[in-house]
Amino acid sequence: MTTEPTAADAVGPEQEAVETALVETVVASFDHCPDPRLKEIMVSLTRHLHAFIRNVRLTEQEWAAGIDFLTEAGHITDDVRQEFILLSDTLGASMQTVNVNNVAYADATEATVFGPFFVEDSPRVELGGDVSFGAPGEPCWVEGQVTDTAGKPLAGARIEVWEADEDGLYDVQRDAGRRAARGHLFSDENGEYRFWGLTPTPYPIPDDGPVGKMLAAVGRSPLRTSHLHFMVSHPGARTLVTHIFPEGDPIMWKDSVFGVKESLIKRFEHQPAGTPTPDGRQLKTAWRRVRFDIVLAPAGA
Amino acid sequence: MTTEPTAADAVGPEQEAVETALVETVVASFDHCPDPRLKEIMVSLTRHLHAFIRNVRLTEQEWAAGIDFLTEAGHITDDVRQEFILLSDTLGASMQTVNVNNVAYADATEATVFGPFFVEDSPRVELGGDVSFGAPGEPCWVEGQVTDTAGKPLAGARIEVWEADEDGLYDVQRDAGRRAARGHLFSDENGEYRFWGLTPTPYPIPDDGPVGKMLAAVGRSPLRTSHLHFMVSHPGARTLVTHIFPEGDPIMWKDSVFGVKESLIKRFEHQPAGTPTPDGRQLKTAWRRVRFDIVLAPAGA
Repeated sequence: MTTEPTAADAVGPEQEAVETALVETVVASFDHCPDPRLKEIMVSLTRHLHAFIRNVRLTEQEWAAGIDFLTEAGHITDDVRQEFILLSDTLGASMQTVNVNNVAYADATEATVFGPFFVEDSPRVELGGDVSFGAPGEPCWVEGQVTDTAGKPLAGARIEVWEADEDGLYDVQRDAGRRAARGHLFSDENGEYRFWGLTPTPYPIPDDGPVGKMLAAVGRSPLRTSHLHFMVSHPGARTLVTHIFPEGDPIMWKDSVFGVKESLIKRFEHQPAGTPTPDGRQLKTAWRRVRFDIVLAPAGA
Repeated sequence: MTTEPTAADAVGPEQEAVETALVETVVASFDHCPDPRLKEIMVSLTRHLHAFIRNVRLTEQEWAAGIDFLTEAGHITDDVRQEFILLSDTLGASMQTVNVNNVAYADATEATVFGPFFVEDSPRVELGGDVSFGAPGEPCWVEGQVTDTAGKPLAGARIEVWEADEDGLYDVQRDAGRRAARGHLFSDENGEYRFWGLTPTPYPIPDDGPVGKMLAAVGRSPLRTSHLHFMVSHPGARTLVTHIFPEGDPIMWKDSVFGVKESLIKRFEHQPAGTPTPDGRQLKTAWRRVRFDIVLAPAGA
């Protein structure tokens, strides 16, 4: 851990002893925890929480502000709004958890944050089908191949995709029961997949709650870099949760949830109106196409 | 901060670099925070939160359990139930904040946790009055003197007292509008005070929510050591928030919120039924008496 200069360095030895004794008393309260992993987590949480309070010399007013923040976050959270995930995301805690659980393995595709907008019951589409289901936005053809790290095609990989529409809203933000700009499909015998979706655009995370207030207070933007979500699973492979990001996005490295990785930036090629599509259609509007080859690490990697 | 052996020591240098880079990126996102104190807090919070995740190698399931815990805590919290304060209390974070903000000053009376049951509009009683207002419990005569650290009596000190009844419930837990076993009074020209209250008894913190589940999972009791709350204020003095604890309490050092300090343990002397009281009454039941002299530090100490 990085050593930071702390205000605690300025307290005298007696005060230091009082504070340290309390930490050890709380740690000892977990001595009889029957689950060793839970004990490890609670002890580490206790040490870091106390170190934070002592390092910044947290005032009682600041402590109360923290309690109020969590209370407000709890009250705005419901079935479709998850302020605690937003908090974790905007502090980089979600991305760090992704890093810890997805250690780089050979040339396996990198993971990024899950986000709060996945739903279990997305509609199934056939290969080449359209997951937009009428959501507004520029059509985008997405294709690629799913392989293992030895380059072997993975047939029947389940590919879940979801994204915001051009207004920056996910289906469930418009209506909890709505399903659009979301779907799942399976790779073919060569591991290949293809579908129509929408060209991703930047959008703000919901910023009318305490997390939005926090971002405003610290001078940060709530905007997320444009992205298309993927979750790809196959028996024997480590499930991949990731995004792809369009090259040239103006937000790029200022993503409010720290999800961008260089390897996940892809060229979404502009196609003028009338350009024939890979499936033989002639769209009256411009569209884009992107290729995203997906390499899955083995399970347990 | 105590250095703990961490699972992160086992990750390779490339993974270490990925994780460290993310911490620095999140820290840098606060570079333009207009409020230096807020920036200091957010940076320290970020560093400790990430260190916790990396030290324990938090799994994605454990992360999700954390999100669920906070969500449940938010949903059980309302005007009279404050699960986030209980969480802070049971992790010793509240007591550590008290320590940080109430550095020992000469022989000033020590502070302890505030707890979630204070209300602003307690009833006023005269010196020698009864704050129980019919709450069930053994009568207890409480008296003492309020002075500064030079021993000078402080007249007109405002003394707020509150406590659970013999069923382990505060008035507001029975009914949000009820006021009993609670009150405020003012010290006389000699700094002295006296009132009737109840002999404190041990009680569990509310344990039907996520904090109660956490305590059960780690093998800890929700019981609080018996105590009587005080908040004492006087112009020019540092406001004192504290408790007194009856000597011999069976819970004593296993207080679920870590509030006990040696100097706050007082003898609550048993008085058989019929023993004349200091104010000349003859009670038909046993009662107790306790002396608590209060020394206030100067404001800003």
